[in-house]
Amino acid sequence: MLKKAIVGISIILSGFMLAACGSIDNLSSDTNSSNGSKTKTQLTGQTNDNYYQGVIKNGRYRTSKSRGVSVSQESNQFNIKGFENGLLNISKKEFSTKKYVFQEGQYLSTDQVENWLDRKSKSNPTGLNPEKVKSTTPTGRTPIYLSQIDEQDFMVPNGKSLKLSAMTVGLAINSVDYYKKTQYGPTYQTNISNAEVKKHGKAIANQVLQRLRKKKALKNIPIIIALYKSASDDSLVGGNFFAYSLNDDSETKISKWTKVNQKNYVFPLQSNKKGPSTNDEDSFDNFKSTIQGFFPNLSGVTAQAQYTDGSLTGMNVNITTQFYSQTEIISFTQYIQGAAQKYLPANAPIDITVQSTEGIQSFLSRKANEKKFSAHIFNSY
Amino acid sequence: MLKKAIVGISIILSGFMLAACGSIDNLSSDTNSSNGSKTKTQLTGQTNDNYYQGVIKNGRYRTSKSRGVSVSQESNQFNIKGFENGLLNISKKEFSTKKYVFQEGQYLSTDQVENWLDRKSKSNPTGLNPEKVKSTTPTGRTPIYLSQIDEQDFMVPNGKSLKLSAMTVGLAINSVDYYKKTQYGPTYQTNISNAEVKKHGKAIANQVLQRLRKKKALKNIPIIIALYKSASDDSLVGGNFFAYSLNDDSETKISKWTKVNQKNYVFPLQSNKKGPSTNDEDSFDNFKSTIQGFFPNLSGVTAQAQYTDGSLTGMNVNITTQFYSQTEIISFTQYIQGAAQKYLPANAPIDITVQSTEGIQSFLSRKANEKKFSAHIFNSY
Repeated sequence: MLKKAIVGISIILSGFMLAACGSIDNLSSDTNSSNGSKTKTQLTGQTNDNYYQGVIKNGRYRTSKSRGVSVSQESNQFNIKGFENGLLNISKKEFSTKKYVFQEGQYLSTDQVENWLDRKSKSNPTGLNPEKVKSTTPTGRTPIYLSQIDEQDFMVPNGKSLKLSAMTVGLAINSVDYYKKTQYGPTYQTNISNAEVKKHGKAIANQVLQRLRKKKALKNIPIIIALYKSASDDSLVGGNFFAYSLNDDSETKISKWTKVNQKNYVFPLQSNKKGPSTNDEDSFDNFKSTIQGFFPNLSGVTAQAQYTDGSLTGMNVNITTQFYSQTEIISFTQYIQGAAQKYLPANAPIDITVQSTEGIQSFLSRKANEKKFSAHIFNSY
Repeated sequence: MLKKAIVGISIILSGFMLAACGSIDNLSSDTNSSNGSKTKTQLTGQTNDNYYQGVIKNGRYRTSKSRGVSVSQESNQFNIKGFENGLLNISKKEFSTKKYVFQEGQYLSTDQVENWLDRKSKSNPTGLNPEKVKSTTPTGRTPIYLSQIDEQDFMVPNGKSLKLSAMTVGLAINSVDYYKKTQYGPTYQTNISNAEVKKHGKAIANQVLQRLRKKKALKNIPIIIALYKSASDDSLVGGNFFAYSLNDDSETKISKWTKVNQKNYVFPLQSNKKGPSTNDEDSFDNFKSTIQGFFPNLSGVTAQAQYTDGSLTGMNVNITTQFYSQTEIISFTQYIQGAAQKYLPANAPIDITVQSTEGIQSFLSRKANEKKFSAHIFNSY
């Protein structure tokens, strides 16, 4: 039984709500249940508007009901991180971080998600991947299309508690499906065309929306369904979102898709690949060759670059080299700071990490529309 | 032959000198040697006054003449990093980062440093460690006292080039000397008392100063000799500097030592150890238990803490835990930011790194005298 809500004094109660931007900063409810034990809802606090606050129950983070399924299903780490980050970015477009609190998915359980990700069969009628057929040839068989499902809940404070007010569900669709004909046999692959990815993704999305609407709590809230094309297992960047639909309260059929034009590249580009901007490639090459000359032992310099609507919208540069002293790390980092400012493309947010076999040594960062890189050098006592 | 110096337009020439604080920003000399090849001196650029600029020759960092000796001689990584960082801090006290440019040691070669670090013997008359005696008992034998030598050169622009204007030499003295009686036998150890560390350290320092003064370039510059007590091999923090002497131009005998009162601790403290501040220990314990409750799978939380003259002057917190999604990392980091602000000691600079088996996930930092922690969450495309 909810007994009392203390809203508005959480800065004193929970002590560490950092930002002060509206009603969601002021939630902290103490609840005495009938057996006397206390249920306390807190928020994580907020670093800045870029991030949602998260939900804490009784001092513990409210983890997803399907926690860990992605990690166990998807073999390319970049697909996992890229999928989750990209999904958050889509959510942020429609559900403001100032108004909504983020809660890890509570409506799809591990079992449910695992069943949905499996093939449809007599024993698994809810499988969202096609039934198995006899053929085992790459083009004759039916591939696994759906590879990841991620649910994000968006809450708003409602008197005594948090109320579910919006949901985003991401569906990752394979561009390549890897399979074995026999348990320990070689791995084969079925390539799935962009047209097939779209067609099957959209069909699955409709099924998912219908199923979600059958749950009482989800009948009458806006639900985003977003579609991601997973990259192949050997890719050094994740895949990309290509479409999403915002379905207003109670809609059970997707009527409109919003196109997402986003693509990731690895720099330096492989010789057979064409990038979206020769300028950016040249900038990166100049940066790379400047950096690589710095030490007698060469540095490895690569980058992940994300383009949205044809423009660079983010870059992660990874530099690895051998260091013999802390002073080398300090000098190298200061040098990188200058070279990055001089050569790397302006405007887009850029992270640069400097690693050795001992782990991260320093890192530099420039946020979107900032002019200068800030640098941090890790030390030790 | 030096032909022409271009001083004062390096911002255009080298393109990336970031800070603008006095004469050292304006060095870049193009030199045509007689055979027509160019020698070009650049500086690394400067992140801020906390760091010295370093010297680049022909686009390549001027590495130490004894590069890599520390790494090969010293088995505890914390001793290496702590020694180098601490030595820089002592240099900064006497040689301003605004006036001086840092150059990796160019006057002691690898051979020389290796010989000095070795025992004195017929074949190695310059060894600074005592001759071997017959006894192999921990107290009967003569231990290796000197374990690391680090040379730092400080330059000022002088017309056409950089001129050596000051030097700092760090000497690390063992508090424990590990040895074997037979090649593959068990490891024994000789413990060296604080009094012995001091006595032998100071004696070796005098010998080093005398030797340095015999080199022409070092006859007439201020030279700091600093003494470091290395921590034992099993220590999770490095040792500490305990004294240094600034020797004015041409002095060949150390007349005055400045005491350094600095000590490092690992939090949580081992039960048999006494720390310098119960307050700081309690603060850390509160922070730790708050953080550890956040996830169902516990987090490991430890810290290195440095005390100078009895006050906390720096802390590195290391948090490791298992993550199942990027949203967990985001929520955890925001929560840590609040908890750190609430519980961790004020004023001292604090770094917090959040790691998983996949490497660093996020990091938070508060500089000395800043009120707030800034946070950075690593992402991927």
